[in-house]
Amino acid sequence: MRVGVLTGGGDCPGLNAVIRGIVRKGTQEYGYEFVGFRDGWRGPMEGDTLPLDIPAVRGILPRGGTVLGSSRTNPFKENDGVRRIKETLAKHEIGALIAIGGEDTLGVAARLSDEYAVPCVGVPKTIDNDLSATDYTFGFDTAVGVATEAIDRLHTTAESHMRVLVVEVMGRHAGWIALHSGLAGGANVILIPEQRFDIEQVCRWIDSRFKVRYAPIVVVAEGAMPKDGQMVLKDDSTDSFGHVRLSGVGEWLAKEIEARTGKEARTTVLGHTQRGGTPSAFDRWLATRFGLHAIDAVRDGDFGKMVALRGTDIVRVPIAEATAKLKTVDPALYAEVGVFFG
Amino acid sequence: MRVGVLTGGGDCPGLNAVIRGIVRKGTQEYGYEFVGFRDGWRGPMEGDTLPLDIPAVRGILPRGGTVLGSSRTNPFKENDGVRRIKETLAKHEIGALIAIGGEDTLGVAARLSDEYAVPCVGVPKTIDNDLSATDYTFGFDTAVGVATEAIDRLHTTAESHMRVLVVEVMGRHAGWIALHSGLAGGANVILIPEQRFDIEQVCRWIDSRFKVRYAPIVVVAEGAMPKDGQMVLKDDSTDSFGHVRLSGVGEWLAKEIEARTGKEARTTVLGHTQRGGTPSAFDRWLATRFGLHAIDAVRDGDFGKMVALRGTDIVRVPIAEATAKLKTVDPALYAEVGVFFG
Amino acid sequence: MRVGVLTGGGDCPGLNAVIRGIVRKGTQEYGYEFVGFRDGWRGPMEGDTLPLDIPAVRGILPRGGTVLGSSRTNPFKENDGVRRIKETLAKHEIGALIAIGGEDTLGVAARLSDEYAVPCVGVPKTIDNDLSATDYTFGFDTAVGVATEAIDRLHTTAESHMRVLVVEVMGRHAGWIALHSGLAGGANVILIPEQRFDIEQVCRWIDSRFKVRYAPIVVVAEGAMPKDGQMVLKDDSTDSFGHVRLSGVGEWLAKEIEARTGKEARTTVLGHTQRGGTPSAFDRWLATRFGLHAIDAVRDGDFGKMVALRGTDIVRVPIAEATAKLKTVDPALYAEVGVFFG
Amino acid sequence: MRVGVLTGGGDCPGLNAVIRGIVRKGTQEYGYEFVGFRDGWRGPMEGDTLPLDIPAVRGILPRGGTVLGSSRTNPFKENDGVRRIKETLAKHEIGALIAIGGEDTLGVAARLSDEYAVPCVGVPKTIDNDLSATDYTFGFDTAVGVATEAIDRLHTTAESHMRVLVVEVMGRHAGWIALHSGLAGGANVILIPEQRFDIEQVCRWIDSRFKVRYAPIVVVAEGAMPKDGQMVLKDDSTDSFGHVRLSGVGEWLAKEIEARTGKEARTTVLGHTQRGGTPSAFDRWLATRFGLHAIDAVRDGDFGKMVALRGTDIVRVPIAEATAKLKTVDPALYAEVGVFFG
Repeated sequence: MRVGVLTGGGDCPGLNAVIRGIVRKGTQEYGYEFVGFRDGWRGPMEGDTLPLDIPAVRGILPRGGTVLGSSRTNPFKENDGVRRIKETLAKHEIGALIAIGGEDTLGVAARLSDEYAVPCVGVPKTIDNDLSATDYTFGFDTAVGVATEAIDRLHTTAESHMRVLVVEVMGRHAGWIALHSGLAGGANVILIPEQRFDIEQVCRWIDSRFKVRYAPIVVVAEGAMPKDGQMVLKDDSTDSFGHVRLSGVGEWLAKEIEARTGKEARTTVLGHTQRGGTPSAFDRWLATRFGLHAIDAVRDGDFGKMVALRGTDIVRVPIAEATAKLKTVDPALYAEVGVFFG
Repeated sequence: MRVGVLTGGGDCPGLNAVIRGIVRKGTQEYGYEFVGFRDGWRGPMEGDTLPLDIPAVRGILPRGGTVLGSSRTNPFKENDGVRRIKETLAKHEIGALIAIGGEDTLGVAARLSDEYAVPCVGVPKTIDNDLSATDYTFGFDTAVGVATEAIDRLHTTAESHMRVLVVEVMGRHAGWIALHSGLAGGANVILIPEQRFDIEQVCRWIDSRFKVRYAPIVVVAEGAMPKDGQMVLKDDSTDSFGHVRLSGVGEWLAKEIEARTGKEARTTVLGHTQRGGTPSAFDRWLATRFGLHAIDAVRDGDFGKMVALRGTDIVRVPIAEATAKLKTVDPALYAEVGVFFG
Repeated sequence: MRVGVLTGGGDCPGLNAVIRGIVRKGTQEYGYEFVGFRDGWRGPMEGDTLPLDIPAVRGILPRGGTVLGSSRTNPFKENDGVRRIKETLAKHEIGALIAIGGEDTLGVAARLSDEYAVPCVGVPKTIDNDLSATDYTFGFDTAVGVATEAIDRLHTTAESHMRVLVVEVMGRHAGWIALHSGLAGGANVILIPEQRFDIEQVCRWIDSRFKVRYAPIVVVAEGAMPKDGQMVLKDDSTDSFGHVRLSGVGEWLAKEIEARTGKEARTTVLGHTQRGGTPSAFDRWLATRFGLHAIDAVRDGDFGKMVALRGTDIVRVPIAEATAKLKTVDPALYAEVGVFFG
Repeated sequence: MRVGVLTGGGDCPGLNAVIRGIVRKGTQEYGYEFVGFRDGWRGPMEGDTLPLDIPAVRGILPRGGTVLGSSRTNPFKENDGVRRIKETLAKHEIGALIAIGGEDTLGVAARLSDEYAVPCVGVPKTIDNDLSATDYTFGFDTAVGVATEAIDRLHTTAESHMRVLVVEVMGRHAGWIALHSGLAGGANVILIPEQRFDIEQVCRWIDSRFKVRYAPIVVVAEGAMPKDGQMVLKDDSTDSFGHVRLSGVGEWLAKEIEARTGKEARTTVLGHTQRGGTPSAFDRWLATRFGLHAIDAVRDGDFGKMVALRGTDIVRVPIAEATAKLKTVDPALYAEVGVFFG
């Protein structure tokens, strides 16, 4: 059998580990052949392929990014997208397709599988860890590690100058990276998209920190928002590709904090450093196991399913179900961490 | 209420994060006072205490080791140990004792709690991750990270000289560190205590790796053993403190591999670097949450229990049960990873 | 003899290593006592001191920031500043003062020494490495390391999405951090303050990189500027403390590149992460040796001098001379590195 | 012109950066073509070549090891070695040969150049930093960084258990790695090959450290030796390839310290982790510049020379001279660092 593989959406450390796991096990244990599709769904739509065999996956385990390239192309928004995909699969005699990606990429896989009988298996990928069907997604641990190391570094400069340092981390809709890295980095304030914050409360926490002669670190998810009436966002321009630009909550916070507390404040926006580079050991482990189990699902003919982590087990869940609901930070968990604020 | 805290057994990155979590929440939310006992069970036995309040736990989150010190003292093996502990607790008016440690330390806590009505709560600690009641223990992720980084480094020197590099990692009875770091590091052979290895098979894997012009990395847990008749261990001397010295399986492997394959082989023994230094973000998160939940157990009067990780939840389990059985690597999981051997 | 020590200006990894070196050698070998002044020149002006002995410097070697605190206070701009400093020194019977800092802090030391007979010894500190009298200053290597690691990470995300990634690093007046981290990180364009860049040339380099199917990384010093007429800077606001805000050349570059090349571009501003956290081994070595030699200068009564690195030797140079001229990137060196552009 | 390139001796982070620098500049600026020889002098002797052009050097900058492979083959010890090399060079029409290596590899280049008119340029490589003609060699900074990070980690485990931790680092004949990493890591004893140590003095330092309630770290170069009569080395066996095995001074020290001080002691041997993996930013900078200047020497027809670092400049020196004398640690420098012992 020939199996197609593609990676879609934003890149994420661990994608290559998934690909390697699929190809090694599929080739050695099941005797499959593989076709790599370039740049997510664009690949099968346009018939753009890459050779994908064991030599092609040697040495890629520790490398960030994806050797298959990625894009946000959605065949359901393109002319004749589904038909073109089916033609490509037929032409290459592909009996199964493994799609590695986030909500959008997997949403396509679910529809192709459920509505168009394209035999798809999904591997979930979201650096934000906001997928409800799985305990963790790969890439998240790496991102938290990068952010934590940055916060560790910022502590000393904050202390030396008795300044407030604001760190803006990824997380448009879910605060997982902010919550984990903020806790691990010993932040004094953590702000997440799930709960609108009160800038006055933030400043009280900052003041109380200075009172014990320590300088505060504020970790804020890019999607966090103050209470109504407290913030006028910069006009949220879109770039030339139609993507929304960061709204700049970190920069806004520093200005507000300076104005309200009379303390100097500086912002660091970690940006893409959080999603690039070599994956952590945890992410390599998780991503590899996702790959191994995805090819097992192919062998079992268990299509329309996605692999997921539950405790220390890899399980399979229907893709459609898995991508239906965003996993956001539970208020109880946020409250638990709140003991370290101030 | 006054709460005692102690750390016993080998040190482990994250111990300080547990202590900080306990003290911050206990002080701020429940109004408890704390007494630190020095060097595990030696502390309460000898009445050796440390002040333990919020200033004492500032800045310790990213630091390895334990501010309370540690030892392997066992009150059940000491003259009058239990009585002396009870006296110390009475003298300091201590209403609950949190013991952070491995099988031995927690075994004492279980007996004190169950048989002597000493109100104990346990926090599990084993860098080897070999405790059956919890998905992961803190320190393990840090150890795996250190070992993986070492393996990453060794690949290039192996390739440049077409040599075999053997990496000996921790794990006397369970191969978790070897398995995770070996997989994450792209090792070509992983040997664990749970399954006796066949040196001839190991050499076949090595040969097949050289055939594709790559140099092999062998990751071996210190407790791994060859099949009967294949190895004569160095006389396993004990040091002047009665601890068994490492038996040197890594060194033995390099020699056997050289003799059998005709390829140069070198050994690196990672040793204590795996258990020291700043904890990973994952371990800080887990250890902190263990601390927060341990003090909740104290508040609930839920003694004889230990906190544990299940999925992403922290739960409580009876200490005695939790420490009864070693969590070893499942043969099925080892087989799953075996696809990368050779 | 009693010796005063202060640290002024922006913080820099290695400051604590200098302090430790001074105190260890001064105490053990020369029998001196030490007085720490808090927050740069504010300390001696206001008589704000800290105890500074061997226990006070234990464990500070690997820590970023400065245990003495820092500020930009300039006694020559304050009412009666010099007189107040002399009074403090007299009151504490201080026979020598070691000032660790950049151009401003050392400039004060030079004037105090040369014009007011205050016995000062200087230790140079500039994370930007822009001091002409010394081959390197501590902190620079750490900053370059942090920036290089970030660039390493960004490569993979650039490749996966065929995007341009712009990394803005420190360097208002000198491009050393950009040059070293850009070269070490394999950047395709490096822009420094010493040479106005041509945005059209930058875009040609970017295009030529895409032509070989690689995605470009642009490293830009915060002080780099395009040719006249090519850039309209954001109104360069000052913050509430009168410091000039970053002008945002990185953000501007990304927009221009998108507009001119039609490729997506993103900016990461590394900010304070470059100057915080644990110093690199090189910086600990250099900073410690600076400390050891500074106290030797005190013992020799060699005031008005500053320690400096020449090759592998630590030498002494007149402070006034050393701070007279900014060390900028030589055009020949920039040209040498230019072979990697595009 | 066609230029040959080879790398010999033990591998060293930065070798690939040298190769990339040579090829990029040679191709782009001088229009040269390149031939890579495999495995040091074995390559030209046996005519074993690799293609070496700009695509071949893409992406190798951050990678440890050497894409050309390495060996210790010495043509002067092989039958007809020199003649075979000359034949290979003639056959490939090679007008210049760049040899990157240590004393042995460069010694061959010097003789070939001086006695046999083979136009050679040398690039010095020694992870031990023991070459007298250059301030630093690449790879050394990476090795020191790896060792320092290990020492950082070991501190916490030493403190928690009040144990002595011995770290054995590379350095058969020169103590540079021990000296730099020991100082940077805050070791309490540093032992180097240049000065025989007195085990009694070592134990006094250890005792004095315990007296202030801190646990000592001993850093020892593999080639360090106690005074006459203090040590009986393990029979120094050679491996099956005739290389001398490590003599185990670290292990011996731990045993002696335990016996003499009554404190527990453990040894970590860092081994090959010090010479593998991604080079530090400093080493990438230095190695790249060595490559750029080596190809300039070729262009200038300046054969029999080697590039070297002096301060921040790259200069050229006669190879024969440069390799004549080992650069060992100056007693004055060792004494300077001695203030931190105990």
